[in-house]
Amino acid sequence: MLKKLIYLTIATQMTLFALLSCTSSSDSDIQMKYQSIADTLIDEILTDDTMWDRLTHLVDYYPRRLSGSQMLEDAIDWMVSEMEQDGFDEVRTQDVMVPHWVRGNEFATLIRPDQRNMPMLGLGGSIGTGGHPIRGEVIVVKDFDELDARSADIPGKIVLFNYEYETYGQAVQYRVHGATRAAAHGAKAALIRSVTQFSMQTPHTGGMRYQEGIPKIPIAAITVEDASYMHRMQNRGETIEVEFYMEAETLPDALSRNIIAEITGSEKPEEIVLIGCHIDSWDVGQGAMDDAGGCLVTWEALRAIHNLGLIPRRTIRLVHFTNEENGIRGAIDYRDKVIGNGEIKQHVLALEVDFGVFTPHGFGFTGSDGAMPVLREIAGLLSSIGVTEVREGSSGTVDIGPLNQEGVPIMGLDVDTERYFWYHHTHADTIDILTKEDVQKCAAAVAVMAFVVADMEQRLDKIE
Amino acid sequence: MLKKLIYLTIATQMTLFALLSCTSSSDSDIQMKYQSIADTLIDEILTDDTMWDRLTHLVDYYPRRLSGSQMLEDAIDWMVSEMEQDGFDEVRTQDVMVPHWVRGNEFATLIRPDQRNMPMLGLGGSIGTGGHPIRGEVIVVKDFDELDARSADIPGKIVLFNYEYETYGQAVQYRVHGATRAAAHGAKAALIRSVTQFSMQTPHTGGMRYQEGIPKIPIAAITVEDASYMHRMQNRGETIEVEFYMEAETLPDALSRNIIAEITGSEKPEEIVLIGCHIDSWDVGQGAMDDAGGCLVTWEALRAIHNLGLIPRRTIRLVHFTNEENGIRGAIDYRDKVIGNGEIKQHVLALEVDFGVFTPHGFGFTGSDGAMPVLREIAGLLSSIGVTEVREGSSGTVDIGPLNQEGVPIMGLDVDTERYFWYHHTHADTIDILTKEDVQKCAAAVAVMAFVVADMEQRLDKIE
Repeated sequence: MLKKLIYLTIATQMTLFALLSCTSSSDSDIQMKYQSIADTLIDEILTDDTMWDRLTHLVDYYPRRLSGSQMLEDAIDWMVSEMEQDGFDEVRTQDVMVPHWVRGNEFATLIRPDQRNMPMLGLGGSIGTGGHPIRGEVIVVKDFDELDARSADIPGKIVLFNYEYETYGQAVQYRVHGATRAAAHGAKAALIRSVTQFSMQTPHTGGMRYQEGIPKIPIAAITVEDASYMHRMQNRGETIEVEFYMEAETLPDALSRNIIAEITGSEKPEEIVLIGCHIDSWDVGQGAMDDAGGCLVTWEALRAIHNLGLIPRRTIRLVHFTNEENGIRGAIDYRDKVIGNGEIKQHVLALEVDFGVFTPHGFGFTGSDGAMPVLREIAGLLSSIGVTEVREGSSGTVDIGPLNQEGVPIMGLDVDTERYFWYHHTHADTIDILTKEDVQKCAAAVAVMAFVVADMEQRLDKIE
Repeated sequence: MLKKLIYLTIATQMTLFALLSCTSSSDSDIQMKYQSIADTLIDEILTDDTMWDRLTHLVDYYPRRLSGSQMLEDAIDWMVSEMEQDGFDEVRTQDVMVPHWVRGNEFATLIRPDQRNMPMLGLGGSIGTGGHPIRGEVIVVKDFDELDARSADIPGKIVLFNYEYETYGQAVQYRVHGATRAAAHGAKAALIRSVTQFSMQTPHTGGMRYQEGIPKIPIAAITVEDASYMHRMQNRGETIEVEFYMEAETLPDALSRNIIAEITGSEKPEEIVLIGCHIDSWDVGQGAMDDAGGCLVTWEALRAIHNLGLIPRRTIRLVHFTNEENGIRGAIDYRDKVIGNGEIKQHVLALEVDFGVFTPHGFGFTGSDGAMPVLREIAGLLSSIGVTEVREGSSGTVDIGPLNQEGVPIMGLDVDTERYFWYHHTHADTIDILTKEDVQKCAAAVAVMAFVVADMEQRLDKIE
């Protein structure tokens, strides 16, 4: 009965919408034109459990979707199969060759001044320890400057970077470049304090890079607590000794896929509003917030638009990119190979959800100043779910960065990220940290933004 | 220079205090009599890093202070040695025979429908798995009622209690009695969802009990996330299979000690205000908040009073109880054997700190209604550090419970406990979760409360 009432309401709104589409020739009054459509989309998404059930299914049955793994490909197969049932105009995959790093077994043990196991995670891309544990004295430094200053102490030692998290951008430098910087001074291995502002004995993995001409040494993340402990102990004059073991290795590139699904535009099908996420994850936890949630949110946005029979002027294209975490190959191949010649210029907007799917409050936008007032008007349609802000600069948009380099305006969904880096790249990134209500709100926000940008008369990327 | 000024201030206050002690014959104006003393104590504690340094030293060098362990006895030796340097009137230990449960190696593995290691902690007091892993199908129940309803399914199975935390008091029943309840239906082993409202893949240990006449089966805690996952999978019709291994065993009772230190009262040395904590901890993490923090706070309270040369009318006795976690033998022996005949009746108040040493805001009191207004006046002396409330009922007072059974009024320090059960009995209970400022405020609150109750004319326990 309730469902019937909803459909009646939708029908009424469709009529109103059709009327408005014919009579209005400007986007100056977005609210008048799209508020009822927006409300219908919001209602559709907030009253349907399909997305939540699919998200839970995806992460429970296909956790640890690291590039190169069978699990990732199985997840893609399942998602494609579900999308085909959704009845979109097109569902296809695009082959992408991706890096294939495997963790293998690993452990870390504190030998002195205490004896105990230490939670650890090898960093993605690291070499292993050569088939046997590495054992040695640890030199703790607080940053690269202290490393350089203590250069004479480093040869043959294990360097621990105990860099205190203030911003992700600063702290992640130690994850990415720590091995190379330590190796340049003669270290035989490196450890980092996990990149996070909060820990419950939680190691965080993530990508690292070697530099040509500098020896490759293994590198792993330990917990904030253990890094702090070792620093305190070093300050007390204690000798620190650890043993750690990693079977990590990089295998030949493997075949993976981007997933692409569309609602074809009614008037300008060649013009594209892209909404996306990344389907790969690290090989720990469930990759629920990073980024299964983003995938389900963008997918649900497309599904809700489709289910309501809404056909925008332009095409809305859903892209689930592969290999964001350790290569961005899906994103680069989408830009360079997947889309046809000249098609980049037809991307009106690219919107990614990859900064968690917690309570949403707005969008970040990297594009022309002139587009901002229009986007703010669109965000105004979402005030009933607390999404109102549009700020300059976008977060969680790694996969659409390559498009932005070619001039495509990009956008990220802004959510409450207070706890994002608590869980980032950890065993604790599971469905338990998300709520159905938040994820639904995220999907509703994306659906409304994507639909209006795809449907409004002005091309967003042409607004100066 | 600053230190000199402080001492001058103290000298002035001492004079004022002596004057007031002689001229006032009632406690009706506690503020007038004790505010300057309180401020001096607060200032003394908030400007001295000794406690924080000692706390950090204790937990870094003596973590995992489980009853029966050498680590606990080493910690006690170090604390006694430090207390002797503090110059208290008396520092002694009292022998207590304590249970000696040892964890040994342990692990849990999910076999179906996914294959992966699961974080786990065997429960204190549990038997082991008999020298080999136990493998079997898991039946997930949400509570004891569902267990009883599914009695026919249980024989030979591993029961998982996935009881959702609402209050500690309810949830802990599954930790304490889960093994017995499952065994009564024929289960071969039991698992519990860890007792907490927040988890980052964090298993929580804690005490359990067997019941005579019911077979003993091994029991361990897994994470909230894994328990939820298995429940979801069972609801989807999946068969759940796990393997787990525990070397746990209970050895013969071992010798431990309570630590007792005193400032002897000037007028009524036989009357005692007890302040205390427990020095043992579980065998994971550092036992920083549970309860090294409580020990350092009560110790610092005594030290600050002593350092300022304050001698109350009654004796203030510091008791660091042993074996709170899995036996309460220290507390029982203190009541039954340690103190002399009739001495219980001379306990004017017992105050324990064992509910964390986060930001303090007041006290909980279990005693006569008549004492409440007096205690509220004393708490009023602490408003500068945000400690103001005195409520009925006390928390974190397990070790002084046996005294309360004999009529001694008891009190607990109330702090911000929002995160207490996040860390409770986990690897994550380390110094990292505490701040110097909070711990100092806790110590200042205890110092002022203990000093005034020990010094005021009225005997607190005699107020009707």
